Parts: sequence; structure tokens; C-alpha cells
Amino acid sequence: MIIVLKPKVAKKDEAAVLKEIKRLGYRPHIMRGVAHTVIGAIGDERTHRTLEVLASWPQVESVMPVQKRHKLVSREAHPTDSTINVAGLLIGGKKFQVMAGPCSVESEKQLLITAHAVKRAGATLLRGGAFKPRTSPYEFQGLGQKGLKLLAKARKETGLPIITELLSEQHAGLVAEYADILQIGTRNAQNFQLLIAAAKTGRPVLLKRGLSMKIEEWLLAGEYILANENPNLMFCERGVRTFETYTRNTLDLSTIPIIKKESHCPIVIDPSQGAGRADLVVAMCKGAVAMGADALLIEVHPNPAEAWSDGAQQMTLEGFARLMDELKPFIGAAGRE
Amino acid sequence: MIIVLKPKVAKKDEAAVLKEIKRLGYRPHIMRGVAHTVIGAIGDERTHRTLEVLASWPQVESVMPVQKRHKLVSREAHPTDSTINVAGLLIGGKKFQVMAGPCSVESEKQLLITAHAVKRAGATLLRGGAFKPRTSPYEFQGLGQKGLKLLAKARKETGLPIITELLSEQHAGLVAEYADILQIGTRNAQNFQLLIAAAKTGRPVLLKRGLSMKIEEWLLAGEYILANENPNLMFCERGVRTFETYTRNTLDLSTIPIIKKESHCPIVIDPSQGAGRADLVVAMCKGAVAMGADALLIEVHPNPAEAWSDGAQQMTLEGFARLMDELKPFIGAAGRE
Amino acid sequence: MIIVLKPKVAKKDEAAVLKEIKRLGYRPHIMRGVAHTVIGAIGDERTHRTLEVLASWPQVESVMPVQKRHKLVSREAHPTDSTINVAGLLIGGKKFQVMAGPCSVESEKQLLITAHAVKRAGATLLRGGAFKPRTSPYEFQGLGQKGLKLLAKARKETGLPIITELLSEQHAGLVAEYADILQIGTRNAQNFQLLIAAAKTGRPVLLKRGLSMKIEEWLLAGEYILANENPNLMFCERGVRTFETYTRNTLDLSTIPIIKKESHCPIVIDPSQGAGRADLVVAMCKGAVAMGADALLIEVHPNPAEAWSDGAQQMTLEGFARLMDELKPFIGAAGRE
Amino acid sequence: MIIVLKPKVAKKDEAAVLKEIKRLGYRPHIMRGVAHTVIGAIGDERTHRTLEVLASWPQVESVMPVQKRHKLVSREAHPTDSTINVAGLLIGGKKFQVMAGPCSVESEKQLLITAHAVKRAGATLLRGGAFKPRTSPYEFQGLGQKGLKLLAKARKETGLPIITELLSEQHAGLVAEYADILQIGTRNAQNFQLLIAAAKTGRPVLLKRGLSMKIEEWLLAGEYILANENPNLMFCERGVRTFETYTRNTLDLSTIPIIKKESHCPIVIDPSQGAGRADLVVAMCKGAVAMGADALLIEVHPNPAEAWSDGAQQMTLEGFARLMDELKPFIGAAGRE
Repeated sequence: MIIVLKPKVAKKDEAAVLKEIKRLGYRPHIMRGVAHTVIGAIGDERTHRTLEVLASWPQVESVMPVQKRHKLVSREAHPTDSTINVAGLLIGGKKFQVMAGPCSVESEKQLLITAHAVKRAGATLLRGGAFKPRTSPYEFQGLGQKGLKLLAKARKETGLPIITELLSEQHAGLVAEYADILQIGTRNAQNFQLLIAAAKTGRPVLLKRGLSMKIEEWLLAGEYILANENPNLMFCERGVRTFETYTRNTLDLSTIPIIKKESHCPIVIDPSQGAGRADLVVAMCKGAVAMGADALLIEVHPNPAEAWSDGAQQMTLEGFARLMDELKPFIGAAGRE
Repeated sequence: MIIVLKPKVAKKDEAAVLKEIKRLGYRPHIMRGVAHTVIGAIGDERTHRTLEVLASWPQVESVMPVQKRHKLVSREAHPTDSTINVAGLLIGGKKFQVMAGPCSVESEKQLLITAHAVKRAGATLLRGGAFKPRTSPYEFQGLGQKGLKLLAKARKETGLPIITELLSEQHAGLVAEYADILQIGTRNAQNFQLLIAAAKTGRPVLLKRGLSMKIEEWLLAGEYILANENPNLMFCERGVRTFETYTRNTLDLSTIPIIKKESHCPIVIDPSQGAGRADLVVAMCKGAVAMGADALLIEVHPNPAEAWSDGAQQMTLEGFARLMDELKPFIGAAGRE
Repeated sequence: MIIVLKPKVAKKDEAAVLKEIKRLGYRPHIMRGVAHTVIGAIGDERTHRTLEVLASWPQVESVMPVQKRHKLVSREAHPTDSTINVAGLLIGGKKFQVMAGPCSVESEKQLLITAHAVKRAGATLLRGGAFKPRTSPYEFQGLGQKGLKLLAKARKETGLPIITELLSEQHAGLVAEYADILQIGTRNAQNFQLLIAAAKTGRPVLLKRGLSMKIEEWLLAGEYILANENPNLMFCERGVRTFETYTRNTLDLSTIPIIKKESHCPIVIDPSQGAGRADLVVAMCKGAVAMGADALLIEVHPNPAEAWSDGAQQMTLEGFARLMDELKPFIGAAGRE
Repeated sequence: MIIVLKPKVAKKDEAAVLKEIKRLGYRPHIMRGVAHTVIGAIGDERTHRTLEVLASWPQVESVMPVQKRHKLVSREAHPTDSTINVAGLLIGGKKFQVMAGPCSVESEKQLLITAHAVKRAGATLLRGGAFKPRTSPYEFQGLGQKGLKLLAKARKETGLPIITELLSEQHAGLVAEYADILQIGTRNAQNFQLLIAAAKTGRPVLLKRGLSMKIEEWLLAGEYILANENPNLMFCERGVRTFETYTRNTLDLSTIPIIKKESHCPIVIDPSQGAGRADLVVAMCKGAVAMGADALLIEVHPNPAEAWSDGAQQMTLEGFARLMDELKPFIGAAGRE
């Protein structure tokens, strides 16, 4: 920690700061500049209590941490890329993966048609929501366990592993029984009890970025998974909230090189939520592939206009097949298969 | 719903939109303007399926809802102000309430000293965290049940009712056993399963605004409480996330007149989280009182520099007593007691 | 400046950083922590070249400035509050000032009716736009010089000094001829050439905060006024851009204690732009007064529904008179007149 | 315009709205829904006065525009892509263009070395700032006319056309004399007087997106160029301001498909400002190419660590050459040359 004192601080006020630094187990190191005295507090910032409280002392101007707070998810902890084995598929490896399927599981017919179609087009995993977090209590909340069973059936028929959302600690066992990957949604990205429950199931976890989550907070939320002894974490960018109203969210593709730099975990891009409009999804997928994403998560529906949730952002089966074709040269250019 | 068609849409494309509108149970009403044809879809937007999916149709330019999505929390549902009876205290009535106490319960001594001091200064409820949601898994997570027991002891000694945070569905029964008000934190503001669990305990619920939650989303999250048959909801503004880095969050005091206009539920202001700096809290409290807030939620600690969490934003006991004095003329000017 | 090196940097890479620090005129001071080596670069950060470029060196983790970049606007430069004398009125003194009038000057009748009415209600300055910055080139751009002449006439009739917007360097002389205070609008808050031109007229300058301007940037924009030898600067908060769509902007009232803490210049609040809705303005004015603002800037129009610009946010004459009455107890509570 | 009345509005209040709609030249069309009466105001929203003021009437719930406010920049006005001829180069055509060079022109040597190097690596235009808008008045403000002369010299030696920033109306003639493209910077994106002055020089204009500018506002700012009879406009995304602090700005690559959809003007991506970090620029360039950008604007410096401005975001000459190589397969995959 670096503690910057205000200009012209009295000796006794400086001494009080030094005493407090020592009390919390750090070793102080004084540096006198032209305008300010700066104190370095030497010690492990992750095991010692934080010194940020000093910022409220009248003689202190600012307190700046030096060390990063994430450990297990960090690139330093694991210099090579991690890969996650999902029923034989590797996420984070040379092969580019595509997770596709409906926003919500609505019926056996809707799900099976979609599953076969996305498989034919080249998708390698099937997505579909059985439990849905909805802004209003009056909106469709998902088919629940019935939806999970339909997903299992679709997996059996197509061989595609399943990713589905977990939104209650109390469903962790149930959802893990059916799903190959547990998805933690945006609104639960800092629901730490849910993160712990998800980690403990042992299933791979896809952690979406919160609506206005800083990179550092996202890494630390991921740390909850690894610190609970589940190494199979992937991050998923799905757009953040900004002032812009043209799109539902602003997809932050810079997260791809940033996550690659800071962490060893795979990064997945969800352009459907990001754009909120199917007509922008194609360009965003191309960008994600070119920038080095490990996988895409795409909403596909046999008839988006009839979808029970988020129809505006779901692609048609034909649109998805066309997209998969158009992505090929970019996957090649990015050195992937 | 209002559906705006693109300029110069073919008759058959217009007919397809009309057909879909009817299929979903609305009655279409056509209006031909100079550049666009606009279709009003007449029907109850809260019971019918949404038409927003039409926005993805190529012939449609935009879809605009006409009706508000919140019902039970709305001012129309309950034209007079709701009041919440908490162990005899009325929140939302003529008397202005002050909830004060430490960010985290750390020890019996710390809690009791604070409880007595804030009571002496005029606080009417005691706040204190027993379960703490922390950005990093390596930070202090609260004393848990031991903290709840200390809160109950402080209540017994001072007579102050208790407000404390609920952050896991699985703790709902336990926390409700001790607390007079359940607090739902910012990071769980759209953890709908937790909202339902909180509502079902029957305890009054204080719902903090999410980090980047729109007013409409906040009202709808509150709707989860009332729709689960718990009428005792209060909203709590604690600052939203913006680009500004001087303060930890940007306290949005305009929520006071907005919530008063849109809803009948009380509005509480938490300036400690908003500012993230004790030295700004005093001015923010004055503003909140003047603008018509029903209560304040303030972090107070006997020694902020030694606090185990968020020390920088906690006031000292003396600072709090001074604040309560300074607030008096503003409480009077606002027509409160 | 504080330069944090990455963990385990080679000696020669550390030496390169030290060499560069010296080359730019700073004296390096090394501090070896448990994980990182931290280098303090001692020297005046305002006269030396910035070291932030080091952040792009591979061996460097981060670079943190220690000194504040603003000088003349800072509280340290002038520990007591500055007051600005505008035709005998003091802004920033014990007397609370209210600037009121129409968004745009539209006609002699509209302006004079408003000017007399706001004076009667207690306003002490007259606002009115003659040159209007408009989002679209097809919107009303103001009456220009004709508007300035009408403002001068209204001043003559009522005795109220005038504040009006300057939006072109080329109009600086012209507008300064008529106006008592030059207003720099939000969209020009970092139009540094305009700031310089405004400063050089010698007229007091009211600098609105940019749409997404950080406090530090705002202070530095103000520095352009003082550094060009014009001491008469006031800051004006008018709402920042956030994700919220209920209001046009989010009025950040925390700027009042922050500007008071960081600077000696007066702070004015413009709730009309902030709220974008006349029905929220009253509460915001009360909050601003209670929090210690020096003045309000309020849009008032004899018939808002017929206004040529921003009608939705303008108050009626009666609404304004009522507001002035309601503000009195809060002005008293805040220790103002 | 669509005007939504509040539920249960009295007949006379409805009549007042209808009267006002007619007074402003629209033809009202009434639609009675289950909860609300909705009025369509039929007429050209671009030539008639706006009805948004009605939003402040007590009987009105909301007012929604139906028509887009931009005309000349819109895709409807010009269904095929516009191309801009800059000294024989076409921007917006099949050939992908790269504008590269230093943030600021610092010296003849620095500029010429860079110009030759970026040309060798494949850049097709030279960028360099002669007038620099700086957050603080104490920072380097550019070499001014001397910088322009150096740019002209570099053009003569390399044949690369020049793009440089215009930041004062009073320099419009001077800068246009030297520059092939005038750049309008982020902080001046809604400095409408500058936009008009730039348009009138007849030079092509590159309009950067403002720090927190909505797409609609950006299109309307562009409209100022075309409405002043200059058809040669290109938009340039350079990152918007969000809550994230890891990068300096959040580069919004979704602007590429959005601008392509809404407008016929070319779109250029500036990843240097967006990332604020040279180490992220490479991935962002790949994404921009894949998503269909027409050109890149990249900061390159022979020795970023010694740069007089924004060193952290400038690439080295070697880095730039490597980038150009790595971009080739993506340019091919995107169907460009």
C-alpha cells in the first residue's frame, strides 16, 4: 500500500499514521517528495488487513493498493492457458467452440428442432434456460425441472453437452445433475453464496460479467470459484450497461485481450445479450473470433417472433447456419479450428 | 404497445405484423402518418405476452410499451403513502427515522458502544452486518449467527429495532428470527430468488438499488416483494455506478422525489455507501432530509480506522452526534419531526 | 509519481526505468516490498513531464500520480471562499443567489414578462439563451444578437444582472459586451479555446460540468480560466450522463461538498437540465440549498408548453414563485440569507 | 409523435392536449386502449416544432418521437455506401485504409522517421497532431503552425495524405490549408460552431464520437457537416466513457455495424484512444477489421516512452509493422484489400 500524506502535515499526525501502519502488521517506508510525504506500507496486502481506512484520516490524501487482489485466476498463478474438458470437448484449446440454443426452453419440439439445427450448422454445445431470472415477477420464469429434463433429452439425441443457468443456491444439486456447464447470470455475478454453491457442485462454471462490473471485480468473483476448489471457470462477456440506448447493452470486446492477459481462464462472448438485436450479432461474432475469444454463446430460436423471452435478440435457424459459414474464414485467420 | 413500421413497408409485411399482434391477443389500431405507419396494439400489457419481439422483424422500426410494468408498488395502486410499523416505529410517517450502526458487527464491545452512542444521539434503529458480501473471497465475511446474537443483545439493551443484511436464501429463516428489517444489498438487488425468500419471511424488507439499476427495474424488483404477499417494502438509494472516481458511487438523490411520485413505499437514503467517504456524508444527509427522504441509513463506528470493513466511509461516534444536531433545522424545514 | 514494477523484474529492466525517471528530471527513490518493487519519482509533477508513459513499458505494472494537477482553482491556493462581484451582487457570499429565466430568449414580451415575474418572486439574476447549442442542426439556434439586446433591455427594466451562454470564440467580444456572466455550456466544457476566449473577456465565467466529466477534469477546465488571468470562476453542476433513462441526466449533488472541499470557487446548481422535468425541480432545489450550494440556475417560462426549446424542464411563473417560498426555510437552515 | 395520456384523464384535459397538438401544426389521431388513451400526432417531426414539451403537462404520461431526426447522414438518404476521395485514396471503398502516425508532432526528425516507417509498413495516410486539446492548461499544447508545416513536409516526402485535428474555429482556414482531412476531436464533438467551420472549409471531416455521445447525437452532429454542404464525412469511434477503469475508455466496436446500418458514411476505428494501452491495440484492430470498419487510426511513435503526449497508448515502429502483418488475413477474411 502507498499512503500519500497531505502537504505540510504535523509530525505527530505523521507519527499516528506510521503507528497505525505498524499496528496492522506492515513495515512503513518513508519517502519525502517536494510537495508530499509518501509512505510505503510493506507487507502482503492479501493476508494483512487493508489500509484503505487511512483515507478517511484528515492528514491522509490518498491510499493506493500496489498488489492485485486476485490470485488463483491470475495469469501469474498459471502462466499457460487453462482448458476445460466438457464431456470430451476442450474449451480454451485450439478448437473454437460454439454454444447455441434458445434463450428459454419452451417445449420439447422447440428445443429438439433447435438442437438438431444448431448441431448441423456446427455448434458444439447446446444452451437453453430452464430457470429464468426475469426483471418482472409477471414474466415467464422458465419451465424449471421439466426444462432440465428436456435439455437432457436433447443431449441424448444430439450428443451436444448442455449449458444452463443456475439462479438459486437451493437448485445447485438439481441443476448440476443435468447440466454439463453451470451458467451464472449477470444479475447474480456478485451473488457470492450462489458462486460458492456452484463451485461446490464440481461442474464447470461460466461466469457472466455483471451489468456494471469492473474487470477487477469480475476476476475476484471468479476467484470465489477457484478458491472453492473448482478449477473449471470460464468468463463470459455479455455487454455492460452504459448511457447508450441504441443497443440494450454495450458489448465490451476489449475484455478478450484483457482476460487473456490477466487470467489463464477461457473467455466466451455472448453477443446476443450484448446487442439485444439479432441484426447486429453477426458482426459482433466476427469481432469476437478475430480478437481471440475461445467460444461464442448465441441465442437461436426456430421462430424468434414467438419466443417466450427475449425474442428480439434470438437468431433464426437459417440465420445461425449462415453465421457459422461466415465465421469460418475468421476462425482460420485467428489460428483456430 | 406502439409498433412503428419502417417507411414504405409492403402491404403483405404490414399484414404479417397485424396478424402477429392479433395472435398474441391484442387488438391492432392503424394510424398512417406522413413518414411511418404506426400500429397501436390494444390490450393489457401486463397479462398479454410482450410484443417487443417484433422489433427484430425487418419491417418494424421500433416497439414502445405504453403501460408501466409495475403494479403493486405503484402510486396508482395505493395513492397515499404507505407506512411500515417496525416494533412500534413508523417508517414513512411524519417522524423522520435514522438507522445507524457499524458496517460489520465485529465484537460485543464494538457493537454495544456504538448502539448506546447512536441511541443517545437520536438514532431510532440499529444497523449492523452479520453476513457480509465481499468483493474478494479473502476478505472478512462477517460473524454470521454470532453477529445476529450480538445484534439481538444490543436491541435488548437499547430498545432499538435491528436492520441487518440477508444474502443467502438459506439464511432467510435464521436472519428473520433475529432481525426487525431484512436488508437486501446492492449486489443482490436482482437476485430474485432471494427477494422471494425475504418476502416470505414476513419481515419488512429494505431493498437497496442495484449498482446500475434503472428506476423501472428497481420498482419491478420491489414488485417481487409485494407480489409475494409482503406489503412492508422500503426502497434504499445508496449510490449508483458512474464514470466518476472521486467518490465510490454517485448518490442519486433525485430518487427521493421519483420514488415518492411513482410509488407509495418509503424511501431511505444511505449516504455512507454513496459517498464512500465520511467527510461528504454530512452534506448528503442534509440534502436527503431536505428532499423528503423518510429515513437515513448511516454507518457509524467507534474507531473507523480499525474497522474490519469499509472503514473509510464510517463516521465516528462524535461525528454522528454532531451530524444529528446539524440535521435538526433541516428536519424541521422539511416538516418532519 | 509512484511507479510499481511487475514482480521479479530483471536488474537491467529496473535500471532502465530508473534511467528514464532521471532523464525526465525526477529523483528516484526505491522501495522493495514483498511482491513488488515500488519507485517514488520525486519532483514537481506539474512542471516536469509526466511519467505515465512508463505504464506502457513491459516491466512496469502501474504508474500513479501523487500530486493534484490543479493549482489556481484549488482550496490550497486560496483557503477562504472566493466571492464574485456581479454588478454589486456577491456570488459565493452569505446571501444565496437565484438565477432564473427562460431557456431561450424568444421575444421581448416573453422575456420581459419572465424577468419581472422572477424578480418579484425573489430571483437576483436573469438567465436567458441568445445563442443555443442544439443537438440537431434543424432545431432553433437562438435569436443571436437580437436576443442579447432583449436581455440588455430586460436588465435595464428590472435591474437584474444577466447570465447568457457563449458558444463560439468568435462571439466572445459580442456576448461580453452585453452579459454580466458568461455561461460555458456542458458540450463546450472541454472546448479549451472557448474557455480561453471567455477568460480573456474579463467577465465572470460560469462553467457547467461536461456530460461525463470527472471532478478532476472539471477543476482543470476551470484552471484554464484562472490561468488566463480571470479570477471570477464559478462551477455549475447540471447533471451527468448515466445509464438511467427516467431523468434526462443524473444531478450529482455531491459536487457541492466536493467543490467546496477542493476549490475556493462558488458552486451553482442547475436542476432544470439535471432533471429534465419541471416536476422534480422543486425537490432538487431544496437539496441543493441544504447541501450548501451558493446559487441556483433555474429555467422559468411564462408558458412552458409553447417554449421553443426544452419546454419540459421549464417551470411556470407561478411554479417558480411557489418554489421561492418553499425554499425559504431551507435557506435559513443552511445559514444563508 | 406519440402522446400517452395518464389513466383516467378528464375530457377537458384531453381536449387541451388535442388543441395544443393542432396549434403546433400536427393532426391528432386518438386511440383508446385498456388503460391509456394514446394520441398520434401526425405531421413531419423534422419541420414542425417538437411536442416533447407536452411531457411536462400533468395529464401526459410520456411523449415518444416516431421519426428519426437525422436526414442527410441516414442510409435512407443514400442507400449505397459513400466513399470519400482523399488525394486519390478512397475511404469507404473496397480497399482498407490505415491512418498512422504520432499523437503529437514533436520534431521534424520524429515525424519523418515515423512517416517513412508507417508507409513502409503499409499505412496509407499520416496522422499527427499540431494543435492538441489538453485536459490541463499546463500540458504541451502542440507545435501549432510549425507542426502543420512539418506535416506538409512529411506528405511531400512520403506521398501520404495528412489528417490532423482542428480545435478552434479561428484556425479552420489555416489547418485546412495544410490538411487533407480535418479531425474533430472527442471533446469538440458537439462544438457545433466548430463543426460548421470545419464543414465550410470543404475538406473531408473525420468526426470522433464524444465521450458519452449516444449514436443518435453522433449522427446529428454529423448532420451538421452535411447540412453545411460538405458531403465528405466519416465517423470515428474512439471509445466511450464508462465505469470501467482498467482501460482509459471502452471501445464500442458495435458502432461499426450500427453506423453501417444507419448511415452511408464510412466508419473509422481509433483503438489507441479507446484502449489507452498499446498492448491491447493489436486485438482491437483485428476486431475492427473483422467487423467491417473502413479504416483504422493508430498512434505510432519512434519512442513512446519519450512521447510528449499520451505515450502509454502509442505503438512502436516495430510494433506497428508487426500489427500490419497480423492484420492481413483478417482484411482478406473481411473481403477487403
